[in-house]
Amino acid sequence: MNKLAIAIHGGAGTITPASLTPELEKAYRGALSRALEDGYRVLTEGGTALDAVELAVVRLEDSPLFNAGKGSVFTKEGKHEMDAAIMCGKTLEAGAVAGVRSIRNPIRLTRAILEHSDHVFLSGYGAEEFARKYDVAFEPEDYFYDPYRYQQWRDVRDTDVFMLDHSKERKFGTVGAVALDASGNLAAATSTGGMTNKNYNRIGDTPLIGAGTYANNTTCAISCTGHGEFFMRAVVAYDVSCLMEYKGYTLQQACDLVVMDKLVKFGGEGGLIAVDAAGNMALPFNSAGMYRGCRSTETDAMVAIYKD
Amino acid sequence: MNKLAIAIHGGAGTITPASLTPELEKAYRGALSRALEDGYRVLTEGGTALDAVELAVVRLEDSPLFNAGKGSVFTKEGKHEMDAAIMCGKTLEAGAVAGVRSIRNPIRLTRAILEHSDHVFLSGYGAEEFARKYDVAFEPEDYFYDPYRYQQWRDVRDTDVFMLDHSKERKFGTVGAVALDASGNLAAATSTGGMTNKNYNRIGDTPLIGAGTYANNTTCAISCTGHGEFFMRAVVAYDVSCLMEYKGYTLQQACDLVVMDKLVKFGGEGGLIAVDAAGNMALPFNSAGMYRGCRSTETDAMVAIYKD
Repeated sequence: MNKLAIAIHGGAGTITPASLTPELEKAYRGALSRALEDGYRVLTEGGTALDAVELAVVRLEDSPLFNAGKGSVFTKEGKHEMDAAIMCGKTLEAGAVAGVRSIRNPIRLTRAILEHSDHVFLSGYGAEEFARKYDVAFEPEDYFYDPYRYQQWRDVRDTDVFMLDHSKERKFGTVGAVALDASGNLAAATSTGGMTNKNYNRIGDTPLIGAGTYANNTTCAISCTGHGEFFMRAVVAYDVSCLMEYKGYTLQQACDLVVMDKLVKFGGEGGLIAVDAAGNMALPFNSAGMYRGCRSTETDAMVAIYKD
Repeated sequence: MNKLAIAIHGGAGTITPASLTPELEKAYRGALSRALEDGYRVLTEGGTALDAVELAVVRLEDSPLFNAGKGSVFTKEGKHEMDAAIMCGKTLEAGAVAGVRSIRNPIRLTRAILEHSDHVFLSGYGAEEFARKYDVAFEPEDYFYDPYRYQQWRDVRDTDVFMLDHSKERKFGTVGAVALDASGNLAAATSTGGMTNKNYNRIGDTPLIGAGTYANNTTCAISCTGHGEFFMRAVVAYDVSCLMEYKGYTLQQACDLVVMDKLVKFGGEGGLIAVDAAGNMALPFNSAGMYRGCRSTETDAMVAIYKD
């Protein structure tokens, strides 16, 4: 049997032991473990990497702890606008959405786009129209309501401040997953609610193929989290892939250069998760912490939050 | 004095001598020449590459001949939705918009984002709100009305067909410019009205940093045109840059591999314009034709439409 591997993240930022109560830390570890196990089970049961990353992200979107799906932060208008992308490393097919509202699981919508659309990237009302056509589930406004998130937004809504998910106090994050399946295929998926109090219908790196999300069987699958503007300008995910393909770097070498050197010099706080076609995994981050987990046929399940 | 260089494009596709009347061909050549000269003059007068590409694209957006700004095609709803991006190769700062309506020159809006926003990529109503704040010019609906474009849309609006700008009959295209200024700085800009009869608020490669638009003083400046979905999945602009940075390819070698080999095998019809930090230029396309032009301190002005 070929090697199987999956890695997940729930966001990166200034996450320290002091910033989480023991109860909250336990809740995060539990949510990460369940998403990891559900995604890994897809792989052991012979499912595709695409199915595994989709399910792992759905589990994280359904948790109120993370800034995606149910837990999405409030925009300046007091709404929820979500971005997501999914990519298949075998075919390089992809689906992405920006600025969608009321969609229970934006990652399921990106999968429908990958499967059924000639387009890759849909946005706003148009993406929602596509969702209705393919029976992607909607939820009423109050599904996305969370008292903490509401207070977080109330604190800054009349200012021009926008908050990165993890740049202040209690931390919430973009979610993502990458996987290698038994057929040797890679896939990546990322989903986010963006920045608290964001305005102007800002789009971040999450839904941009090559920036926040990328998969290619030749090299690796990548899902990013962090200060999206810097990740976009640095084309982070495809940069890791190109360092492997064009310079012969290992996955770890490529991730270390991009996340721990180039992004640090550039001022781009955050991290990523990555898996290559041989099942090697890397989960680098240059912030204080990153909600993360991984498991493969050769390594036990690992869930972590802070730096080692 | 350092070398100066500028290249522009007005779209790529199945453009053949049979597809243009002599009058129309003359009109295209005239519009391209004027945009090229106006952009080049910015450089000779000591202006920045950013100013040069912005002005060249404004000239092309103001022409009804190209699918950008005034000449933008109709969406499925009979509206005009425009995408654009601009990037500075010195700072890697960028501005991008998707799905904006009623903006006379979307490229001016991307420049305002680059200059004044902490964000890179704005969309829809939010981007329009930002435009009002920074006095970017709006136009009424009828400014964007063109009888030919209207008929082109009427022919397909009740179908699920969407048309690439250049895949049928009389051809219109995405526009772009790249430049090198006297200080050795590179810049790239791209603007488009997207696909005729597009729906679901589709976003193409044009506004995506690394896909349709990219600039980096270390390597090159790139503006793409073609079947956007393939350009996004192949992260075309950053691929050219990475081949130069990581494999030591020349600009021409990198462009040839990406456009004439990788994109052809992938099924991605189109082309791009590129300039590197030494003032070398490349204007490759794998389609029948590409509206294009270039000029530098070492080469006379050249404007062309078909293959040589």
